[in-house]
Amino acid sequence: MACCNKDLCKKESTCLEKCVYVSNPYLTTMKDDILYHFDLGTRTHDLPGMFGDVKFVCVGGSPWRMKSFAQYMNVVLGLGCATADIPDICAHTDRYSMYKVGPVLAISHGMGIPSISIMLHELIKLLCHAKCSDVVAFRIGTSGGIGVQPGTVVVTRVSVDPCFNPCLKQNVMGMTMSYPTALNECLAQEMLKCSKELNKFDTILGTTLCTSDFYEGQARLDGAFCHYTAEDKMNYLRCAYEAGVRNIEMESAAFAAMCNRSGLPGAVLCVTLLDRLQGDQICSSHEVLTEYQERPQMLVGRYIKKKFCNK
Amino acid sequence: MACCNKDLCKKESTCLEKCVYVSNPYLTTMKDDILYHFDLGTRTHDLPGMFGDVKFVCVGGSPWRMKSFAQYMNVVLGLGCATADIPDICAHTDRYSMYKVGPVLAISHGMGIPSISIMLHELIKLLCHAKCSDVVAFRIGTSGGIGVQPGTVVVTRVSVDPCFNPCLKQNVMGMTMSYPTALNECLAQEMLKCSKELNKFDTILGTTLCTSDFYEGQARLDGAFCHYTAEDKMNYLRCAYEAGVRNIEMESAAFAAMCNRSGLPGAVLCVTLLDRLQGDQICSSHEVLTEYQERPQMLVGRYIKKKFCNK
Repeated sequence: MACCNKDLCKKESTCLEKCVYVSNPYLTTMKDDILYHFDLGTRTHDLPGMFGDVKFVCVGGSPWRMKSFAQYMNVVLGLGCATADIPDICAHTDRYSMYKVGPVLAISHGMGIPSISIMLHELIKLLCHAKCSDVVAFRIGTSGGIGVQPGTVVVTRVSVDPCFNPCLKQNVMGMTMSYPTALNECLAQEMLKCSKELNKFDTILGTTLCTSDFYEGQARLDGAFCHYTAEDKMNYLRCAYEAGVRNIEMESAAFAAMCNRSGLPGAVLCVTLLDRLQGDQICSSHEVLTEYQERPQMLVGRYIKKKFCNK
Repeated sequence: MACCNKDLCKKESTCLEKCVYVSNPYLTTMKDDILYHFDLGTRTHDLPGMFGDVKFVCVGGSPWRMKSFAQYMNVVLGLGCATADIPDICAHTDRYSMYKVGPVLAISHGMGIPSISIMLHELIKLLCHAKCSDVVAFRIGTSGGIGVQPGTVVVTRVSVDPCFNPCLKQNVMGMTMSYPTALNECLAQEMLKCSKELNKFDTILGTTLCTSDFYEGQARLDGAFCHYTAEDKMNYLRCAYEAGVRNIEMESAAFAAMCNRSGLPGAVLCVTLLDRLQGDQICSSHEVLTEYQERPQMLVGRYIKKKFCNK
């Protein structure tokens, strides 16, 4: 075993000297750290050289969308063309994809809280190993809307669980831990400002419902199983709307909780693909859905360009 | 909207006449069904023609591993060569990958319960739309072992939650539903028998701990955050061992629960990549890990060959 968690008093040089983002005394005892799901490591890679200049991290479920975002940022920052073949830094694993364009790191996280949670643990460690500072994080994604026009971008003020509580509950060794899931209000307001400047589509601030299932967990009637009625569903969605919920997705609670725990300012921007008060299935054409999915990245792109060019 | 969930009494022809696996009265009211994350649908694809002969479904986290399994089954069933370029049926989406080889369907499911849950909802509907019958399901994967030699394959008898309860708890509209997570005992015994016949590596029956996080959720000391001690970790892992747990992964509970709910006989076979009583990081070489990951697919391959050739 290359790593030793056993001796906290060991004074040898370790893989992590000091970092603002992590909160784990054992990391400073490890000679090296393998970021298994990224296929990166402190012994095998020059992480400060590769990532030391990262100032913006943008994550999203789909690997293709994150590659597209990296290509888009290439153009926005004047670093290259839209069709540039930006290499996948995690090409030796198929768990996640990672692209870097100047100060921007784009990473896919798959679907659901467990999948994004693994990625964020390794990302936060990566930022520390690379000695990054003053990093801002974004999650861009898709969602189901509640009472909003499809195509609207919802910037999350707070992520809530299925009982509309603003926290992420996590089971650690049989005990339930609870972490707050409010997001950075200033950053959310900056996103709204970017949308007003762009003036191309609607963007609103709202509460985001984060679930652990796409079908029953989001009260859909079109899953393999359904033990409730259409009336139950509508009552639940109306209660959600009353509680301020404007969209539903599956990762914001983990993103918000881990931003809060690490001290990373974070924003969640999800476009709504349908209005769940009108139906369950996503019936729009590929072209419409593709155009919708470009909207959150346009807002993040505008924000990054403003910050990057004002250095 | 192409689909209508509103009128249960409507007598028009629908996308689903009758199916043993699904349990959702609303499906029979829908004119067509879009399996969004597979990019397949009843209106756009001839699902009975494409999938009607499927008898074995094998799922696993990694898209690459599922392609490799499909190529392996090509050889095992004498249908083609190991390097055959089997097309990804879900090539128009990057959410999941799907490969078909004769009666075998291989699908990736990503990491964590939410990700596999979406896939299983759509798979179970797919089997019904395609009018499949007598299907057997397998999950092959990787895991952390507890008190077993790395490389051992654990066939899950029952999947337990972090409190060692044999159930999956799911929040539906604010209410907690609980589903049993025992797996098919006969199928598990058949897997053990296949291993004895192969006589190449150790395979054991055991309880599998299913968590929603890889780091804190599995009591690791090498995540971005760690608020517990090495002693807490070891106490928890020893309690797990006492409760019969021999490996830890992140999807078995959803797989078991949905097999039970749908009536699909299912087995979970995960190879252990390390012994968690000895450490947290996965330090073995790529070559060793690749060889380990072939072990569950050899057992499933042998079972399918026996059944397929004895028709």
